Amino acid sequence: MRILWIFAHPERHSLNGALLDEGLRTLDALGHEHRVSDLYAMGWKAVVDAEDFRGPGHERLVVGAAQEQAYGQGELSADIRAEQEKLAWADVVVFQFPLWWFGPPAILKGWFDRVLVQGFAFGLKDAAGTTLRYGDGGLAGKRVLIVTSVGARESGFGPRGIHGPVDEVLFPLLHGTFWYTGMAPLAPFTVYGADRMTPAGAQDATEALSHRLRGLSDEAPLRYRHEQGGDYDDELVLRPEVAPGRSGVAAQRLDARDRVPA
Amino acid sequence: MRILWIFAHPERHSLNGALLDEGLRTLDALGHEHRVSDLYAMGWKAVVDAEDFRGPGHERLVVGAAQEQAYGQGELSADIRAEQEKLAWADVVVFQFPLWWFGPPAILKGWFDRVLVQGFAFGLKDAAGTTLRYGDGGLAGKRVLIVTSVGARESGFGPRGIHGPVDEVLFPLLHGTFWYTGMAPLAPFTVYGADRMTPAGAQDATEALSHRLRGLSDEAPLRYRHEQGGDYDDELVLRPEVAPGRSGVAAQRLDARDRVPA
Repeated sequence: MRILWIFAHPERHSLNGALLDEGLRTLDALGHEHRVSDLYAMGWKAVVDAEDFRGPGHERLVVGAAQEQAYGQGELSADIRAEQEKLAWADVVVFQFPLWWFGPPAILKGWFDRVLVQGFAFGLKDAAGTTLRYGDGGLAGKRVLIVTSVGARESGFGPRGIHGPVDEVLFPLLHGTFWYTGMAPLAPFTVYGADRMTPAGAQDATEALSHRLRGLSDEAPLRYRHEQGGDYDDELVLRPEVAPGRSGVAAQRLDARDRVPA
Repeated sequence: MRILWIFAHPERHSLNGALLDEGLRTLDALGHEHRVSDLYAMGWKAVVDAEDFRGPGHERLVVGAAQEQAYGQGELSADIRAEQEKLAWADVVVFQFPLWWFGPPAILKGWFDRVLVQGFAFGLKDAAGTTLRYGDGGLAGKRVLIVTSVGARESGFGPRGIHGPVDEVLFPLLHGTFWYTGMAPLAPFTVYGADRMTPAGAQDATEALSHRLRGLSDEAPLRYRHEQGGDYDDELVLRPEVAPGRSGVAAQRLDARDRVPA
């Protein structure tokens, strides 16, 4: 398999750096090809602006339209095109980051904002003219794994924990970004208590990551609903007979009672 | 009242620019003071890195600790200190942004990552040594309003919509960022269908925003649970007798059946 590993941590000499090292060693041992985008080391530009688009200037910048046009004409900036090429190459994408304010650091958010443009990652139509989204799209066929570290304890991220279940907190990525563009998200690999990590705890975490990576191709992804699978009406609302009485982000799972494996 | 308006849109000549103009006119008419941080116009630096901290270099950057230390010693970079000063001044904070990948643009995510540091926004303790979080903290007493624009239709963001309810999609901000630091979040002001907005629709949206702002001081915030309010056990899990049988981010609302007003 071909694995693209997006690393969004400012310090290579860290728990996250050790997880990356162990992850790449495991992929090597399995004979997988891998490429790494170390966003801090690359000096990745986080912010979408008019400099992302070559060609004639924009009197009034409409980001979505400018991105789609520049993509179609091969005029996105070189750093964006390089990431799109890596993404097209990959069978599996790993996004590794410390959880800051319950989401990705700005440098990674900016990777999504700048790389996943209309025409490439979404906004594609099938032969009948239906727009492909949620389970289908420009990145269909790829699997994706979040590897993240959290300062807090695990209990607070459980089904009734104060922070919210980790798969619901990460719903904007898992469902709104990955599944939206057609990628199949695996359950996030989460290291809790990262602020008070002992050497033994770090060892356990790297071994657990290695174990997850060895099962990468066999693991069942999270079971979100396909937009075109018959569960939604024309207003993109769940039909009354689907998951009756349920609502919220949890209702978008086919198996809302499945929890992220430890 | 004193209102800080954080504007995170790359194009001032836009629907969002018109909403900002109308918002500031309304605040003026009401006699409120306001200050604006136009992040794109300011060239706001989105990415946390070692340059945020003056003083001796860091052999190994531990972001949270470096932020807390630099804050305590007055050695955060000047752009961060200026935003903290505005935030301390404000009674109400408005965050305005286009919803990109179901979250804030990177430039705004970086504002949270860089400005809301430990010692200032969170990590404070009361006299008994209890850490103040979720309903209490460094920013307690302030109210906060999200003003956001979405390309998609409203139906998909309803209780059973494919994108998830807007207050659950925005949970990392509303609960994990605002409520975590003590701020009381109001229901988000959301403009749907922004990609196909007619002039009449834009007029309706600016009038609706003006209406919301006129009621700013009377409006009831979203009812999240206080960490110290007795609903959570020592593991930060809801006690069995609280919201029995419920789980997920929705269970963190005292009134999970309340929906965001139109």
